[in-house]
Amino acid sequence: MRIVVDAMGSDQHPQPDVQGALQAARAYGTEIVLVGDQSAIETELARHDRSGLNISIVHASQKIEMKEHPAAAVKSKKDSSMVVGMGLLKRREADGFVSAGNSGGVLAAALLYLARIKGVKRPALSSMFPTRQGPCFMLDLGANTDCKPEYLLQFAIMGSVYAERLLGINRPRVALVSNGEEEGKGSLLVQEAYPLLKASGLNFVGNAEGKDIPAGIADVIVTDGFTGNVMLKLSEGVASFLLGMIKDEVKKRPVASIGALLAKPAFEAVRKRLDYREYGGGPLLGVDGIVVVAHGRSDALAIQNAVRLAHQAAERGTLEAMRAGIEQGLGLLPTTVED
Amino acid sequence: MRIVVDAMGSDQHPQPDVQGALQAARAYGTEIVLVGDQSAIETELARHDRSGLNISIVHASQKIEMKEHPAAAVKSKKDSSMVVGMGLLKRREADGFVSAGNSGGVLAAALLYLARIKGVKRPALSSMFPTRQGPCFMLDLGANTDCKPEYLLQFAIMGSVYAERLLGINRPRVALVSNGEEEGKGSLLVQEAYPLLKASGLNFVGNAEGKDIPAGIADVIVTDGFTGNVMLKLSEGVASFLLGMIKDEVKKRPVASIGALLAKPAFEAVRKRLDYREYGGGPLLGVDGIVVVAHGRSDALAIQNAVRLAHQAAERGTLEAMRAGIEQGLGLLPTTVED
Repeated sequence: MRIVVDAMGSDQHPQPDVQGALQAARAYGTEIVLVGDQSAIETELARHDRSGLNISIVHASQKIEMKEHPAAAVKSKKDSSMVVGMGLLKRREADGFVSAGNSGGVLAAALLYLARIKGVKRPALSSMFPTRQGPCFMLDLGANTDCKPEYLLQFAIMGSVYAERLLGINRPRVALVSNGEEEGKGSLLVQEAYPLLKASGLNFVGNAEGKDIPAGIADVIVTDGFTGNVMLKLSEGVASFLLGMIKDEVKKRPVASIGALLAKPAFEAVRKRLDYREYGGGPLLGVDGIVVVAHGRSDALAIQNAVRLAHQAAERGTLEAMRAGIEQGLGLLPTTVED
Repeated sequence: MRIVVDAMGSDQHPQPDVQGALQAARAYGTEIVLVGDQSAIETELARHDRSGLNISIVHASQKIEMKEHPAAAVKSKKDSSMVVGMGLLKRREADGFVSAGNSGGVLAAALLYLARIKGVKRPALSSMFPTRQGPCFMLDLGANTDCKPEYLLQFAIMGSVYAERLLGINRPRVALVSNGEEEGKGSLLVQEAYPLLKASGLNFVGNAEGKDIPAGIADVIVTDGFTGNVMLKLSEGVASFLLGMIKDEVKKRPVASIGALLAKPAFEAVRKRLDYREYGGGPLLGVDGIVVVAHGRSDALAIQNAVRLAHQAAERGTLEAMRAGIEQGLGLLPTTVED
């Protein structure tokens, strides 16, 4: 599999981007195309052993900054690493694209330069989310703040395909985020999406309340991009608040401080289970190509895992499966539904 | 202050409800009216020392169950403790009402039997929410799943009054939950509510992302009831997942287990800071009376704190302040706005 990596993506680019890509090439046999400033990439490459690896460079003279307005930036910066990388994917010169750059920019570039899968109304940003029963897969995380019921149905279909192919779960359990478990509870959006999901043939387990999600109620958690974004960031916030509070209370107590030292390996294990770097970024689903959005603060390990994710998604035919799923799902929608 | 307590409210009623009310009477000098099955209340009262306390009973022959449909139940069960208690409040025979019963029922009973504050479009369920900088006040938590911008403005006004009077914060910082910090980010609802809040004269600090809320970005967190409900329950879920994971990882390691034993007082302190029982339930704001909804699984301490909250809210003139705030806020709305 040939994966394009945006070498100018992460906050510390090109170091983590290039090193992570090399690590992935070594670990998974991935063929890597690095896109970005040629001399910066070559300088970074020179620091590593690349013997036996299949690495090429495609020069791009511009880069999109984190602070730029996504849509405007990808329109005006045609020779940015992000746009050039997306072009390689579009022309089928690569099997996947990974960027740790401006995530709105990746979304905008994908919408502008890559077709959507036929029939997909709105692509969605997704991510793994740790739960008591292992990671689940959550979408949308912010690509679509205001949704229609049929978007949620398509998110459910795409998420289900993804959980099946990438997490290896047979008939993944799909749940709809709501403020009550029973059918009929929820916002108007949820109330209208519920019957679509119920009739979808997916393994729909009903509504999920906030508390059920970290408990592991489902493998695929479907919601609108507003709620999903708030949920994802709130979870990070609550975890960091809680761990910070434990630290504060431990520090106040000399005996507890010794105890915490002894318990440190347990805390490290928890930290690892929550570490976003292990999850390899979030796939952008619904566009006609494998696109993985990595965290801006990615280090080499995070990039390596994002490349692994793109490699596996391509290898396991997720795009083909999504095309089939969406086509089938379209049959469920009233024909009057306008995009 | 005379506070009515629904003696048939909590899961373990009437024990925690009666005992908690007595504790509040003892601690804060509150005059208590217990509503519910007279003989059950008397049996429970006989177990406690009530010397010097001002306690009376109003008999109610029915009770509303947790599983009942809220609106239907409060309409048909006119002699339920919830409806009778709400009637006392309406006739100004009491200064506040506390119930740990079916929270949808309390909301429905308040809407049906208690007037709204003049000009209030939708009452909201609220609660304290622990943050790194002390508790903040969050609303709506589920009374209104689909909101209009002007509802959010009113939630902000009511929440601000409440934080000022009950948390003792001068000009509380008010934030709007969104999926991006900048003005213009967010759902259509948030985009339309933002300018209303900005023009409100409140201490509006802008949008809050999920991660900012546990960090303590604001004293009043405003959102629609769908998002608020998901956020509140998700936070509980994440905290419980995280503490459970720490426990699991500690258990696997003998040395860490000894460490955790030594660190136990620190963990207890964390648990106490997160304990919902300390917060005394969530006020229902916007109805023309002080109504506090306590958790169904309340124990006597939780009920005591809920009574304290109702007592303080009545004593500190929150209703009067809300009336004034809402009246002022109405001037901000376009006159064409229909409820």
